[in-house]
Amino acid sequence: MAVFSLVDSGLRDVDVMLSDVLRRDNLLMAEVSDHLLKASGKRLRPALVLLSGTFGGFPSERLTRVATAVELIHMATLVHDDIIDDASMRRGVASARQRFGDPVAVLAGDFLFAKAFQLFASVNDPRVVHEAAQVVGIMCSGEIQQQLDHGRVASEAEYYSRIEAKTARFIESSCRLGAMAAGLALDEEELLARFGHEIGMAFQVVDDILDWSADPESLGKSVGEDIGQGVYTLPLIHALEQADWSDELRVYLADPKNPPVAQIRELLSQSGAIHYAETVASSYVESAKASLEALPAGPTRSSLEALAEFIVVRDH
Amino acid sequence: MAVFSLVDSGLRDVDVMLSDVLRRDNLLMAEVSDHLLKASGKRLRPALVLLSGTFGGFPSERLTRVATAVELIHMATLVHDDIIDDASMRRGVASARQRFGDPVAVLAGDFLFAKAFQLFASVNDPRVVHEAAQVVGIMCSGEIQQQLDHGRVASEAEYYSRIEAKTARFIESSCRLGAMAAGLALDEEELLARFGHEIGMAFQVVDDILDWSADPESLGKSVGEDIGQGVYTLPLIHALEQADWSDELRVYLADPKNPPVAQIRELLSQSGAIHYAETVASSYVESAKASLEALPAGPTRSSLEALAEFIVVRDH
Repeated sequence: MAVFSLVDSGLRDVDVMLSDVLRRDNLLMAEVSDHLLKASGKRLRPALVLLSGTFGGFPSERLTRVATAVELIHMATLVHDDIIDDASMRRGVASARQRFGDPVAVLAGDFLFAKAFQLFASVNDPRVVHEAAQVVGIMCSGEIQQQLDHGRVASEAEYYSRIEAKTARFIESSCRLGAMAAGLALDEEELLARFGHEIGMAFQVVDDILDWSADPESLGKSVGEDIGQGVYTLPLIHALEQADWSDELRVYLADPKNPPVAQIRELLSQSGAIHYAETVASSYVESAKASLEALPAGPTRSSLEALAEFIVVRDH
Repeated sequence: MAVFSLVDSGLRDVDVMLSDVLRRDNLLMAEVSDHLLKASGKRLRPALVLLSGTFGGFPSERLTRVATAVELIHMATLVHDDIIDDASMRRGVASARQRFGDPVAVLAGDFLFAKAFQLFASVNDPRVVHEAAQVVGIMCSGEIQQQLDHGRVASEAEYYSRIEAKTARFIESSCRLGAMAAGLALDEEELLARFGHEIGMAFQVVDDILDWSADPESLGKSVGEDIGQGVYTLPLIHALEQADWSDELRVYLADPKNPPVAQIRELLSQSGAIHYAETVASSYVESAKASLEALPAGPTRSSLEALAEFIVVRDH
């Protein structure tokens, strides 16, 4: 992503460390890792670690280790999520469970968690390990909540708590861990954490919009997948709360296993539910940018601002 | 277990901390935790943390946290192993995956790992976190190796490396982490770690013997399960290496999905393969006891010696 240009070389260091950490152990794990590294994502979380840490001066090897560990945690949760969601595709290629089977995917995820905590431990700051372990626990609780809510229409407030636990807290942590690793003052750490929390909320709202509105090819998966998984997201929740549209929508949702995706998509667009969700995402982005104002102006702050804006315009 | 009487009150503290850690988050996780706590095991690993730490004086709250974290890691690996092995029973009750489904079991395991690392972080010693994360990685590699070896007759040497990674290293770590948490000198830590490694090897060899020779009721699962999973353990490996028995045994193993368990059991006993494995286990126990000799004599050392001896006489 162009918005990461300031930390381009830092992200290359992360990629080198990722390969190094993952390819040493055994043949199968090396194969699984190659597969995961090929289906490489946006590197949003390590970029946030590096950008946040850059307020402390030049990126250090210590910061690279924390950024790599954060990406390992992210990879571990994706590998396990694919088992949970019974997903056959991830980022346009076969998911690890599809390629190697559930047993190997369970173990590969655990292995990635273990490698992450070895790296977190290596920076010799108990706050770093505690923050990372806490956020993994919160993400699990969020996912468990999503399992419990399966097929149930949550309220908008419940939706926000769920995406906070599932997504925003970890993006918040990425910023916080960068600040910790760079030894920033606590008030700067808090501002960066708040920034991360708000773009994390925006990020998930946009993901949930894209699940309905994206071009399947750039998204790398089909449209309307969430409802097929029994997960109601903001556009649907909002449309169901509108008297003019809820009856028609309820008819479409009567058989949640085979929803008429094209009709629902059209309704979400016409009813203004997609637009509403976009407004919510934009207001999180504004709030994120506001928390940066007390931080020193310069290229790092501009990169974070650009990143926040990029989140609402991306198409995958 | 009577051999744990010296740390009985310490283990009660561990149980209180386990319940406390697991019941706070959400309803489903509380239910999963209750289920796991009911199917409670032998508490071997936390007992080893406490006994090892006792060489540093009276058990501290710090030691309780490490002992609890070690048991949480153990619980996490069991929950995930049951998914990997497609197991419906664990310690005589339904396994978590059988009771709650694979998605919840994946998440519950991750949640237990996360809680464990929060506790490890709380003792403010990066060596503790690093040791714990490293051993989780090694256990995953060991399990992955077992997946790779599925249905393949490993050599005796390969068997020992596999059980080292799968079992012995974590029992070694339990002793080492107790020594670290109690601030013992490095040479005492090494002696305790070596003790743990050797009883860990003995423990797994005895487990593998019990898979063939135990009374199914006291074992809490059926006999001959390993071979049904495509896992060849020491008694089988040894019998297959003996010219007098290997032909007959190979006939029995021709259809590994439906092995004639009673006949194989009889052959392992008659051929002396069970006896051979018992000899191996005993020699690990002797080696374990030898590494205690340089440690101060007294009730703690006697308890560890008794524990080492108990491992070879247990029936489940």
